[in-house]
Amino acid sequence: MNLGLNLSFAIKRLQDPEELAKKCKNEFKTDRVQFTWDLIDPWWPELQRSELAQRYKESFKKYGISIDATFGGLAAYSYPQLLSSNEIQRRISVEFFKRAIDLTIELGSDIIGTPIGGMSYIDAHSVNRRDYLYNRAIEDIREIASYGEKKGIREIHIEATPLESEFPHSPEDTLQFMSDIENTTQIPVKMLIDWGHALYKPLLKEKADMIYWLNKCKRYIGSIHIQQTDGLFDRHWDFTMPGIVTKEKIEESLNIFELNHIIQYLEVVPAFEENSDDVFNKIKYSMGYLSDIFHK
Amino acid sequence: MNLGLNLSFAIKRLQDPEELAKKCKNEFKTDRVQFTWDLIDPWWPELQRSELAQRYKESFKKYGISIDATFGGLAAYSYPQLLSSNEIQRRISVEFFKRAIDLTIELGSDIIGTPIGGMSYIDAHSVNRRDYLYNRAIEDIREIASYGEKKGIREIHIEATPLESEFPHSPEDTLQFMSDIENTTQIPVKMLIDWGHALYKPLLKEKADMIYWLNKCKRYIGSIHIQQTDGLFDRHWDFTMPGIVTKEKIEESLNIFELNHIIQYLEVVPAFEENSDDVFNKIKYSMGYLSDIFHK
Repeated sequence: MNLGLNLSFAIKRLQDPEELAKKCKNEFKTDRVQFTWDLIDPWWPELQRSELAQRYKESFKKYGISIDATFGGLAAYSYPQLLSSNEIQRRISVEFFKRAIDLTIELGSDIIGTPIGGMSYIDAHSVNRRDYLYNRAIEDIREIASYGEKKGIREIHIEATPLESEFPHSPEDTLQFMSDIENTTQIPVKMLIDWGHALYKPLLKEKADMIYWLNKCKRYIGSIHIQQTDGLFDRHWDFTMPGIVTKEKIEESLNIFELNHIIQYLEVVPAFEENSDDVFNKIKYSMGYLSDIFHK
Repeated sequence: MNLGLNLSFAIKRLQDPEELAKKCKNEFKTDRVQFTWDLIDPWWPELQRSELAQRYKESFKKYGISIDATFGGLAAYSYPQLLSSNEIQRRISVEFFKRAIDLTIELGSDIIGTPIGGMSYIDAHSVNRRDYLYNRAIEDIREIASYGEKKGIREIHIEATPLESEFPHSPEDTLQFMSDIENTTQIPVKMLIDWGHALYKPLLKEKADMIYWLNKCKRYIGSIHIQQTDGLFDRHWDFTMPGIVTKEKIEESLNIFELNHIIQYLEVVPAFEENSDDVFNKIKYSMGYLSDIFHK
C-alpha cells in the first residue's frame, strides 16, 4: 500500500525506538515510515547520533517496517537554511543537510527530503535578491546531491511550501524549479507535494487545487504529504477534524493521475500540549480512514 | 520599563541583525530583548556561530538595546532534552545547553533560560521513572550551572510549561523544584513563568490563575513571558487577539505583587505562513498596548 506515516506526531511522546516501531505496526498499521529529524537532530555529535540511529534502524527492521525516507521537521524548518540572507548561514545549512544525509544512511534509508529554506522579509521583497538566492540554492542543492550520491542516497525530495518567501510555493514555481535543476544533479531531485500546502488559499487562490497541481507537476513528484486542513492555515490536522481534504478529492486524484506508485505519508503535527492518548487515537483513526481509500 | 520583547516572532522574517535591532527600537519601542536560539542554533560550528553572534551583539548595542537573556525556541523545544528517556540523549542535551551558554556569552548576555525538556508517554506514566528523570535533570542543571558560572553566566531561568510530561508544570511543582534546587547550584536558578502556560485550563483547572501562581512562587521568579491566549491551548497570540490575558489581570498582578523589578517579555509565535507585514503590525500594536500598562 502506498500510504505511509511521517513520524512528526511522535516527537517527545514516543522516545523508545522499539515502542514507536511496535505502535506503527500494530496500532497504526503501517509498514512504511518517513523518519523526522525532530527525533534525531543531524547536528548531534556523530558517534552518539549514529548509536541512536542504529537503535531505530534495528527496531523498525524487527517490526518489518521500512524507513523509506528521512525528512526535515519543526527544528530544521525554524531556520532559513539555504535561503538565508547571509553566506555564513547558507554554508552552515549545506553542512546541516550533509549531516542529514549521514543520518539517513545510518538509519538504513536512501531518500532524503526537506523544504529548501526561507527568505527574509527584505530579500523576499527584492526581485534581484530572490533571483540571487534562488540560483544559490540550486547550486547548493547540486553540492548536496553530489555528497548524497557518494554516501548512497538515491533521491532528494524538495517540498513545496505555502509561503511566498520560500521556493517553490506554487505549481508554476515548481515547474520552473524542476526545469532548472533536472538532469543537473548527481542523483535525481524530485518534488514532495503536501495536500495542505497545495490547498492553501491565502497564497494560491484559485490554484489551491490538487488537480491543478497534479496536472502541472505530476511527473516530478517523488512523494506526497497528506494532512487535513481548512485551507486557511497550514494545519497538519489529523482526519478526525472536518476539512477540505475529502475522501472524494483524494479518490479523484488517485483515479485521474494513477498515483499508485507514489507514497503518501500522513503528516500530523499536534500541538505540544495535546494529550498523547488523544494523539495516538487520532493517528490510528486517520490511518484507518485513509487506508480505506488507498486500498481500493 | 520592565516590558521587553522575545525575538521568536522574527525567525526567518528578520535575518539582518541591524534591521532587527532597528525595528525593535524604532517600531516596537523596546530597549530590552530576549534572544531566541531559533535565530542562532547553539549546535552551529563555533567559529561561524560566534561570528553571527558578534553581528547581533554589535547591532543591538548600536541601537541601545540590551540583550538581557537568551532563551530556547521552537527548535530546542522539539527535542526531549534533559528529560529524554535515554542516557545518550540526556548527555547530548547537557552538551547542547553548554553550547547555548557559550552562545549567550558571545552575544554579550549573562542570563540563559529554557524549559527542561519532555518525558516520553511511557516515562510520564511511571512514578518511578518520573522520579528518576526529575532527579537526573536536577543533577544535570547543577552541571550546567557550574559550566555557566565558569563562563560568566549570572542566572538560569527555568520555564514552567503546560504539560504534565514536563517539570515543572504547576505552582506546587514549581515550589518543589525550587526547594530541591535552591542553594545547590553555582549560580542562581530562578523560574520563568509564562502567562499563557499559567492560565492553561485543561491541565491546571482552577489553578489556572496568575494570582494563585504568584502567591505560591513569586519569590522565585526571574522573568515572565507575556502572551495572549484563550486558556485552551498554548497560543502565544499577540494582543490584537481577544483573550483572557486582560489589562485588568495584568494590572492586578502588577499592583498586588510589586512585580516592577521583574522583566516581562512579549513572546508571540506566529504561524510560519503568516504574512510578515501583519506580524510586524501585531507586534507593534501589542508592545504599545502593553507599554500603556507597564508605564503606569
